[in-house]
Amino acid sequence: MITIDSLMRISPVIPVLVVDDPAKAQRLARALVAKGHRVLEVTLRTPAALEVMQEMAKVDGAIVGAGTVINAAQLRACLSVGARFVVSPGLTEPLARAAIKSGIPFLPGVASASDIMRGLELGLDRFKFFPAVAAGGIPALKALAAPFAQCRFCPTGGITEATAAEWLALDYVPCVGGSWVATI
Amino acid sequence: MITIDSLMRISPVIPVLVVDDPAKAQRLARALVAKGHRVLEVTLRTPAALEVMQEMAKVDGAIVGAGTVINAAQLRACLSVGARFVVSPGLTEPLARAAIKSGIPFLPGVASASDIMRGLELGLDRFKFFPAVAAGGIPALKALAAPFAQCRFCPTGGITEATAAEWLALDYVPCVGGSWVATI
Amino acid sequence: MITIDSLMRISPVIPVLVVDDPAKAQRLARALVAKGHRVLEVTLRTPAALEVMQEMAKVDGAIVGAGTVINAAQLRACLSVGARFVVSPGLTEPLARAAIKSGIPFLPGVASASDIMRGLELGLDRFKFFPAVAAGGIPALKALAAPFAQCRFCPTGGITEATAAEWLALDYVPCVGGSWVATI
Repeated sequence: MITIDSLMRISPVIPVLVVDDPAKAQRLARALVAKGHRVLEVTLRTPAALEVMQEMAKVDGAIVGAGTVINAAQLRACLSVGARFVVSPGLTEPLARAAIKSGIPFLPGVASASDIMRGLELGLDRFKFFPAVAAGGIPALKALAAPFAQCRFCPTGGITEATAAEWLALDYVPCVGGSWVATI
Repeated sequence: MITIDSLMRISPVIPVLVVDDPAKAQRLARALVAKGHRVLEVTLRTPAALEVMQEMAKVDGAIVGAGTVINAAQLRACLSVGARFVVSPGLTEPLARAAIKSGIPFLPGVASASDIMRGLELGLDRFKFFPAVAAGGIPALKALAAPFAQCRFCPTGGITEATAAEWLALDYVPCVGGSWVATI
Repeated sequence: MITIDSLMRISPVIPVLVVDDPAKAQRLARALVAKGHRVLEVTLRTPAALEVMQEMAKVDGAIVGAGTVINAAQLRACLSVGARFVVSPGLTEPLARAAIKSGIPFLPGVASASDIMRGLELGLDRFKFFPAVAAGGIPALKALAAPFAQCRFCPTGGITEATAAEWLALDYVPCVGGSWVATI
């Protein structure tokens, strides 16, 4: 299985997708992959999300995972439909332990030094920085990253096409989550 | 016993009260209830707080609870004087477990996705968003609420009479904590 | 052993030092002590940090401790070279318990009410507020300190010579961490 670190280096922008209609999923995924967005995060914010993931996974070149995964039961549901990675808005011990045990690439959200240290205690050092802009933007991530040279971050939340490059210019930011990329 | 959700829907503004003098408590509570503020949060920031709660509870129509409750010992003290609900600036497992076990309506503070997820793991989905303005204001709550459609929030801290309406316009904000309402 | 509270009252500015070269450590420490900075925080951000601490500790009047300590193994390393205090960017239970057990003055970082309450549960009430400016600055610390009258804070991160006085004017801020003081 691919590591979360390798996954974060495939494409600089990971589209964060909220998709209601599974019938439109394949077409959307094909369009995104054609634009170079191979890693696709389908959030569990719609009842159709699991089905959408399965549809998108049929598209050549797409690496489809789940976002907004907030507990171990949702993690199991995502594993059962073949999610390739799992993203969470935050970091809790029960979910992190279940994800680590399953072996799936796991990207939990952090917003403070305590969050990051809890992650490191569990063996994690790749994190989503969420909500990126509302939690203080680039100055906040710079301050938080400074004591944690071993960590890499995928800032997500409030980033736009216009601001993505500033985030990606940071050494410890291989990719950003982009909610602006597609809405369907 | 009333649920925390019902309690949050009684009045849009919950006065957050710091009261030193129990002799003035009833008069204050009557004035607030007359203005439509039935739910009154008495913070444990003064030595007189427990007595103040007991005095205020004698006022017809007042639903009096405790704020700034930070551990299980304080929770027990509040229960012993008949507090109708309990508010905490943050969320810790020991306090949350004690509050849930007691059955009292409980509103713990959150400021990050990890806080919210820890609350959800414990079975909680009604939260204080604290400190509301200093933690990023409305953009921060919007970003934090997005992945947690099941949650409702009572933003508190830095909200004013002038800004309360903007917060209350959010679907997931049935009420706000108002420290501006009364000082005594 | 000195308490963390006493330590926070020795000098209003604690230099936060990132030092690569142990050969320069004593001279730097002497210069800082001469300016009244007796409490020196050497961050574990360089491979030489432990050696730097040992060199600095030889300087008369210097009280040398470790910063950026993020787990119990690093704490033990710092204890083994005679660190007089330990600072962490965040607060986790394993590190806090190890620090408390060792008896060393310990200043963990907090950025939210939940962080502070977790610290209080462990018996701690002296905290680093980190990252001070990026986490919301003085308004954020004011809001966070209000429910926790028993706590004192050492804000660190983004504070400058020009802004230190504003932070130190707060009753609950006996000292600030200063990364601006020295770079070597």
